Amino acid sequence: MLLDQTKLPRIQVEMNITSIPMLVDAIQRLCVRGAPALGCAAAYGMVLGVVDTTKPEQWIQELRATGKLIDAARPTAVNLGVGVAQMLAVGERLAARVVAQGQTPGSAESPASSGVDVDVWTAQLLDAAIAFHQADANSCLAIAENALQLMPDGSTVLTHCNAGALATGGLGTALAPLHLGHSRGLHFEVFADETRPLRQGARLTAWELARHGLTVSVLPDSAAASLLASGKVDLIVVGSDRIAANGDVANKIGTFPLAVMAERFGVPVYVLAPATTIDPYCLTGADIPIEQRNAEEIYGEDGAREGVGVFNPAFDVTPAALVTHIVTDHGIFQAHGENLAAWQIYVTGLKS
Amino acid sequence: MLLDQTKLPRIQVEMNITSIPMLVDAIQRLCVRGAPALGCAAAYGMVLGVVDTTKPEQWIQELRATGKLIDAARPTAVNLGVGVAQMLAVGERLAARVVAQGQTPGSAESPASSGVDVDVWTAQLLDAAIAFHQADANSCLAIAENALQLMPDGSTVLTHCNAGALATGGLGTALAPLHLGHSRGLHFEVFADETRPLRQGARLTAWELARHGLTVSVLPDSAAASLLASGKVDLIVVGSDRIAANGDVANKIGTFPLAVMAERFGVPVYVLAPATTIDPYCLTGADIPIEQRNAEEIYGEDGAREGVGVFNPAFDVTPAALVTHIVTDHGIFQAHGENLAAWQIYVTGLKS
Repeated sequence: MLLDQTKLPRIQVEMNITSIPMLVDAIQRLCVRGAPALGCAAAYGMVLGVVDTTKPEQWIQELRATGKLIDAARPTAVNLGVGVAQMLAVGERLAARVVAQGQTPGSAESPASSGVDVDVWTAQLLDAAIAFHQADANSCLAIAENALQLMPDGSTVLTHCNAGALATGGLGTALAPLHLGHSRGLHFEVFADETRPLRQGARLTAWELARHGLTVSVLPDSAAASLLASGKVDLIVVGSDRIAANGDVANKIGTFPLAVMAERFGVPVYVLAPATTIDPYCLTGADIPIEQRNAEEIYGEDGAREGVGVFNPAFDVTPAALVTHIVTDHGIFQAHGENLAAWQIYVTGLKS
Repeated sequence: MLLDQTKLPRIQVEMNITSIPMLVDAIQRLCVRGAPALGCAAAYGMVLGVVDTTKPEQWIQELRATGKLIDAARPTAVNLGVGVAQMLAVGERLAARVVAQGQTPGSAESPASSGVDVDVWTAQLLDAAIAFHQADANSCLAIAENALQLMPDGSTVLTHCNAGALATGGLGTALAPLHLGHSRGLHFEVFADETRPLRQGARLTAWELARHGLTVSVLPDSAAASLLASGKVDLIVVGSDRIAANGDVANKIGTFPLAVMAERFGVPVYVLAPATTIDPYCLTGADIPIEQRNAEEIYGEDGAREGVGVFNPAFDVTPAALVTHIVTDHGIFQAHGENLAAWQIYVTGLKS
């Protein structure tokens, strides 16, 4: 079941996802979006891919094929691949045991396979997906606790896009400390960039924060510079779709110019993301694939205007030097200056 | 007659403006927008304000009252005030002659006034408004010629908002050299920032340029940083709503962060505007009033979301140091570095 985020804040529609093509479509249309939420959707999607399968060989083949489809749905968020990979690893372990017991892989009618109840595998895979989801909720909480150390009571906070509860399996990433702090009686004033073209800030962040009683105002993305120039903003929090090993951060288009303006006005930029967002095998931001999206996002339902092209990248890359702190569920890091070595050790430890 | 720009590019609706309240409403709803076009609308509006008046004293009083209403319609563009002031000066001269001939000002029934045919005054005022409009068209051409010296054939050009024919009484300001160059067989590739919240780039600039056969692509405002980072853009052209004496430039919200990004990537920024946009009595950008607009522009017809605030300034100020050249109908200037003195002499000469 997915909440259709394209319909928010007007109406709350729950989508009952019953097939992988339906899930891939929901991911591509951004009915579900936000890197950690995509990871959870991928994990549950892997279960969905095998739920009707009865034969062990078919089960693992379906699981692999499902993984490929989900992984290819969108290119930038690393979490989609993480959700797929973790479920696939669980599935491969389950299947390998049968193979070790004399199973011939790929043979649909091999005698040994008939004694295996793949429903047990599917149940175990579902447990793993639930655990993946729960782990995401836990890391949201840990991110919130860590980030609150950097966010004094009374802070005015600017954010971009939606890195909130709607983007994760828990409280959110960038918005998690705001939710947690608010629940503890801390006061934050929040400004949310509208975030064109899909307006996640105006539609989702404002809705999510106002609904929970936080003070929030929306501004056009291009007004953030004026807001920062006014001196009102104490700090910026954003999420991330992929963090390279050198600390370069891919996030929603507009994060990079925001960080440049923040540097100009001495406002710190905090990137809040679970460790799963860090891709230790991706050396720099230049290696992160950037998804180009369609003209309809800019021009609405009537599509591109006749004779008019569109440049519509979904993400940009903020250089590590412009990110004051990267806050994960494991702590507060800096991918530059004297703390660079600690960051590098941390990232290396994420390889496994 | 105004072309209703809020309806473009879907439909072309001509508005027959028959009263000053109707004109002020059209200005405030941005049916007519763009600093030089506002100047022309103001000039013709002054004629409209007295067209039904028969008595000399009433004529000049109506003209002054009309000027106050038009002047107050929007605060940032200096051209609105210039159009008003030039027409008022013409009107005051006409009225002063009657006063000099023994007229008692302010007395509606004074005998001398009955001999004056104010229709002649109104006709002279209309001639002055037409001349004002024509002068604007001429200065568009002069701006285009001057700016083309800075824009080699084959350039890739980024622009923001709409400073085109739709924004002026002629070819435009920022877009004028593109139109003129294209008509001479030069080739330009144009990128147009969408320009939230009212999307003048996507709606007006793309429409205007594609219609005249130029190659144009639209991008979300926050994608301009990525486009500049890609190295594709050779130069940026923008218009202005008011230029302070020190060369600080007020223009559509988003111009300032664009100029900051341009500096980062070594892309020159050209501000193209008629001399009437320069306000020699406004010392710096800090003295330019910035219009705050309403929540509906961001949230659409259903207005502000419950419990959600809005920060929606229509303009921002780009510091003079970030503007490579200011190009007017009089030439190419620089409000910094070794050419600062020439700029200062030019601006002082505009006081009169």
